[in-house]
Amino acid sequence: MSGNTFGRLFCVTSFGESHGAAIGCVVDGCPPGLELSEADLQPDLDRRKPGKSKYVTQRKEADLVRILSGVYQGRTTGTPIALLIENTDQRSYDYDKIKQTFRPNHADYAYVQKYGARDPRGGGRSSARETAVRVAAAGIAKKWLREKFGVQIRGYVAQIGPLELALQDWDAVELNPFFCADPARVPELETLIDTLRSEGDSVGARVSVVASGVLPGWGEPVFDRLDADLAHALMGINAVKGVEIGDGMRAAGMRGTEHRDQMSPQGFLSNHSGGVSGGISTGQDLLCSIAIKPTSSITTPGQSIDESGAAVEMRTTGRHDPCVGIRAVPIAEAMVALVLMDHALRHRAQNADVVSLVPRIPSQAP
Amino acid sequence: MSGNTFGRLFCVTSFGESHGAAIGCVVDGCPPGLELSEADLQPDLDRRKPGKSKYVTQRKEADLVRILSGVYQGRTTGTPIALLIENTDQRSYDYDKIKQTFRPNHADYAYVQKYGARDPRGGGRSSARETAVRVAAAGIAKKWLREKFGVQIRGYVAQIGPLELALQDWDAVELNPFFCADPARVPELETLIDTLRSEGDSVGARVSVVASGVLPGWGEPVFDRLDADLAHALMGINAVKGVEIGDGMRAAGMRGTEHRDQMSPQGFLSNHSGGVSGGISTGQDLLCSIAIKPTSSITTPGQSIDESGAAVEMRTTGRHDPCVGIRAVPIAEAMVALVLMDHALRHRAQNADVVSLVPRIPSQAP
Amino acid sequence: MSGNTFGRLFCVTSFGESHGAAIGCVVDGCPPGLELSEADLQPDLDRRKPGKSKYVTQRKEADLVRILSGVYQGRTTGTPIALLIENTDQRSYDYDKIKQTFRPNHADYAYVQKYGARDPRGGGRSSARETAVRVAAAGIAKKWLREKFGVQIRGYVAQIGPLELALQDWDAVELNPFFCADPARVPELETLIDTLRSEGDSVGARVSVVASGVLPGWGEPVFDRLDADLAHALMGINAVKGVEIGDGMRAAGMRGTEHRDQMSPQGFLSNHSGGVSGGISTGQDLLCSIAIKPTSSITTPGQSIDESGAAVEMRTTGRHDPCVGIRAVPIAEAMVALVLMDHALRHRAQNADVVSLVPRIPSQAP
Amino acid sequence: MSGNTFGRLFCVTSFGESHGAAIGCVVDGCPPGLELSEADLQPDLDRRKPGKSKYVTQRKEADLVRILSGVYQGRTTGTPIALLIENTDQRSYDYDKIKQTFRPNHADYAYVQKYGARDPRGGGRSSARETAVRVAAAGIAKKWLREKFGVQIRGYVAQIGPLELALQDWDAVELNPFFCADPARVPELETLIDTLRSEGDSVGARVSVVASGVLPGWGEPVFDRLDADLAHALMGINAVKGVEIGDGMRAAGMRGTEHRDQMSPQGFLSNHSGGVSGGISTGQDLLCSIAIKPTSSITTPGQSIDESGAAVEMRTTGRHDPCVGIRAVPIAEAMVALVLMDHALRHRAQNADVVSLVPRIPSQAP
Repeated sequence: MSGNTFGRLFCVTSFGESHGAAIGCVVDGCPPGLELSEADLQPDLDRRKPGKSKYVTQRKEADLVRILSGVYQGRTTGTPIALLIENTDQRSYDYDKIKQTFRPNHADYAYVQKYGARDPRGGGRSSARETAVRVAAAGIAKKWLREKFGVQIRGYVAQIGPLELALQDWDAVELNPFFCADPARVPELETLIDTLRSEGDSVGARVSVVASGVLPGWGEPVFDRLDADLAHALMGINAVKGVEIGDGMRAAGMRGTEHRDQMSPQGFLSNHSGGVSGGISTGQDLLCSIAIKPTSSITTPGQSIDESGAAVEMRTTGRHDPCVGIRAVPIAEAMVALVLMDHALRHRAQNADVVSLVPRIPSQAP
Repeated sequence: MSGNTFGRLFCVTSFGESHGAAIGCVVDGCPPGLELSEADLQPDLDRRKPGKSKYVTQRKEADLVRILSGVYQGRTTGTPIALLIENTDQRSYDYDKIKQTFRPNHADYAYVQKYGARDPRGGGRSSARETAVRVAAAGIAKKWLREKFGVQIRGYVAQIGPLELALQDWDAVELNPFFCADPARVPELETLIDTLRSEGDSVGARVSVVASGVLPGWGEPVFDRLDADLAHALMGINAVKGVEIGDGMRAAGMRGTEHRDQMSPQGFLSNHSGGVSGGISTGQDLLCSIAIKPTSSITTPGQSIDESGAAVEMRTTGRHDPCVGIRAVPIAEAMVALVLMDHALRHRAQNADVVSLVPRIPSQAP
Repeated sequence: MSGNTFGRLFCVTSFGESHGAAIGCVVDGCPPGLELSEADLQPDLDRRKPGKSKYVTQRKEADLVRILSGVYQGRTTGTPIALLIENTDQRSYDYDKIKQTFRPNHADYAYVQKYGARDPRGGGRSSARETAVRVAAAGIAKKWLREKFGVQIRGYVAQIGPLELALQDWDAVELNPFFCADPARVPELETLIDTLRSEGDSVGARVSVVASGVLPGWGEPVFDRLDADLAHALMGINAVKGVEIGDGMRAAGMRGTEHRDQMSPQGFLSNHSGGVSGGISTGQDLLCSIAIKPTSSITTPGQSIDESGAAVEMRTTGRHDPCVGIRAVPIAEAMVALVLMDHALRHRAQNADVVSLVPRIPSQAP
Repeated sequence: MSGNTFGRLFCVTSFGESHGAAIGCVVDGCPPGLELSEADLQPDLDRRKPGKSKYVTQRKEADLVRILSGVYQGRTTGTPIALLIENTDQRSYDYDKIKQTFRPNHADYAYVQKYGARDPRGGGRSSARETAVRVAAAGIAKKWLREKFGVQIRGYVAQIGPLELALQDWDAVELNPFFCADPARVPELETLIDTLRSEGDSVGARVSVVASGVLPGWGEPVFDRLDADLAHALMGINAVKGVEIGDGMRAAGMRGTEHRDQMSPQGFLSNHSGGVSGGISTGQDLLCSIAIKPTSSITTPGQSIDESGAAVEMRTTGRHDPCVGIRAVPIAEAMVALVLMDHALRHRAQNADVVSLVPRIPSQAP
């Protein structure tokens, strides 16, 4: 219960350090009978993995996932599915020099205050490498949600530093190294990242995820609202500093006549609330956004302290992303998938017998 | 497990409908020996309660809390503390006319799709009235955190609709009906709310909470990060659509050289991260903000449907806040307190024996 | 999370002390649409309540349960159901004299070592009075299980001290004050209890519960086996020292050819395993037994210590059952009901889509 | 949440099938700073492992455990400890012939009713092989409990079929293949097992575990009593049908004057209650016993059904223990260790600040 298990009914228990022997997880609670093999999980891992383009970290990891249990003759059995990803590129010597010091805005200092010590190799457990197992686990959830309900979960980068990026074309997202849905802007992004790298700096990002096909009725009314659990899931991604549902923080400046989503027999007239009302899905598209802070590991020197408390100047070298937000797209999708899967199961546990006499209206009026 | 219990070790289980017999909760896991009486809990309830000024809903509720168990001779015993608040002002006839229809942007429609039926009296369980029990429960957490660690948790309204409100003076917050920390702006707020009411409209708000005195080391590294659990807690408040830690969504547009919080032996040089690093508290002030959407219950008519799916025009009457965000201040403080209390206990469960040899640096360099 | 919540999906959170203002609980996770009123819960409370015959404690408690929330127009809404039982007979002066001392084999000493203090009034939280709320909560579970699946849960006293009592006639159980299913033995029991009371002594008991109509497939294979959760539930009743499933402890002395339950198309040929195999229900009758230790509160003086650690002689007076096991029948039924309800929901959460092609065989071959 | 995670604060999540690629677990919540290597875990695995003598199954498994994470430079870091045991002896062809049929008293039938299908290779997840990971995980708990509190957890076989076996000599337990504490009886046991094997039959057993050095105050008063959690843990071992604390089922026949454990300044005068009072440890030795049913896999033919529901005669071949209870000793110790570790952490989470003014008395008066 040190917070390494996610979910109540579809439970993912994660383990592993960036530069240890392996990372992995145990997925408990998956319904039986789902066709599943490593080939279902690898594509999203490949989308997340480092070293794919010069715009992200050059660490090379095969990120090959192996299913150790819970699948027999190509189908889930209902027993725990263990996933293992061995670490292959463990250049821990990169980190030796920083062992006695704390990198500014890294988890090092907080870890030492909490645990008395830390695994300094590549950030150990605080490394974003841990998120690979979430992506792998969520591959199962995505598949089940898609096959059973037709749910589709897609993300894109909506902002990189000063550049806001519109959702122009879903198909473009996979065709550039920035998960950018506005292909005309890609050259600007290339220039921005090149500039940052040469300046020894980094930049934040905003990632948006849209889940369509969500049935009305998922979520719980009070503490474990669907949006609250999404917030927990998304804020639990490394470097995330803000989570929005629908209009998000902009709602603070809006009027009721502007924000409220009116309804008609033909469908909802708007989606400012992002598909959740009172903590429960409405059947509209689920809209989430997150802000990822700029990479803290930059080559511009910064002030810090060492383990004795003395002042030091830090300059992080190594293979870091100038914008960690880019690779956060499959991770954010993964967390949304885990939440939806969990709530789909929670919903039917309590409400499997419910017959609503009220017609469901479309997500959006034409 | 329908999401009405909050916390892992300091657990609050909430019950009750807006217009039922009573609302209340059971608080399980409180350390024994804490001096406690109703007088410790009532002040925050009074801060939250409706009908205090003409700028909030005119519903009258005494909101008197009664401790039913878990306290003996003025001290907690370590057994569950049951808190009960009876509903006194149950004018449910106000709601009869809306029983067959769904109010736009209300939880009604989602509830019916989930449960097949709903309690229409005052929104039933989806009413913000439920938050009174969170405030009551959090009074226990606030007291324990203050007495044991010196933690102080304070909130204020940072924005009402178009008006951004600075943190000028903590003492002013309790002296005006808007929880506004910039007393010079109060007349503007009065005008805004009066205008909204006459126009039959409402407005959103942003609320900020600051927790000082938090020890470094609280939180968990992966899923149950301190910030992730704060996000869960805060997004779980009615009408909240966005949660930010530190610079929040603005981090998306920032550079690493700007955002990273450098450290010196004299203390942290900035607090863009809001007091959390890698999901664990750093000992800096904890900074959270939330956006509350504009009240959906407004007198301007809106399009909706009835239970047969037919189009209707809705005009919500009754006693509603033109800006529900105002009264969210004690609620947001309460949720922060519940999270901190839970993590303080979680931390010592695992790490009570830890002796960190690394000096703790001040929250802020002078 | 101090252990006052029972269940994962059908969750009962209990509160209250024997001589406090009230006892009660919050039931979270109940499916919506179940017809429910206090009249459904009162009968089992009346079966458990003290003072009904001269063979049990003479404490008078009305044990009237009140539903505070979660029910609207006579049906559950899916939101938490709060149940309240006010304490009426709070003769705490009975307990004043024992305040500074520890009763032998009572929880007093353990409580003080754990919490530093205790509520001495009537045993406070350690009193069997707390079990009334379990009985009330389980009334909901019993009703749902019966209406949805036809599950019937019945208990009887199988042994009181030296007297073993056969299951001769289910109907007789409610017609004598001993929950005895062998009516011819009742006079012996009357004599035994009268003798014990005059001798200032008490006696243990064995209670058996049979649940019929349980579907095959409930339970989980590893830690949360159906039988393991039953053991948790039943050992969690005050004074229980042993739990058996099927042949129970006798299995240690049996041979495989004798114990194994063979199967035929006409049904199972025996039920030594008590309806559970590999932690999962087989569709046979579920058979559980518990041993309840003899009442520790007896008038025969015993050695003990006081709060300073000095030796004292204790003689417990007050209104105690000579055999607490008798009133344990509805409590044991209640705990079985709570486990079955929880597992019925857990099962459908994961396995709602399962279609087993293997025919179900009858519980028992003719 | 399909029941493959054990514990609330010291959490073990188990995975793996008998004849899959590997079995293993993730241990979350271990305090940091504990010296740990595979060498700490292997001895108990070796005690449990099959094929060690001719009196247990001849399956050969190296049962070598590997620590994949959570340990750095020989000490736990506070992050999840993943343990992996690869399956080496996967003679699944042994099981091909039984694939279409259900073995009497095996989990096969229940699994198929629950999940619609099953992994038939060696019983899959229902195999006692899964318990190896519990033993490995508990090695961590045993070490921490021993080093921090001096807790010692030891088990022995107290009965094999008709033969009751006294606790004569703890040292003898490890010196014979039966975990028998009465070395003079070993020849009888050898004869019994040889006879059973030649007769194609099996026999049950009773295993007792004693934990000494447990501090008073561990456990929770109501549902999660220390004894209730022990019952859950021990009934969760394959083939266990009864759990006793202290005098256990015998308490049903005892009198209060006989059973109650009186106290004196020199210590407790008896231990009928087995070290728990009101669900909380008293500081006495913790005494638990379990009954393990006779092995269901025997060569004497039995009646069963096949997947179409038709009658078949089954004769289980393969490498089975004539008495599975023998190897249950390290498993039972393991489950007790997991419960105690969990409750030690739970206790200090809530009660770390408690100072009891009442002297602790010795476990046993001299």
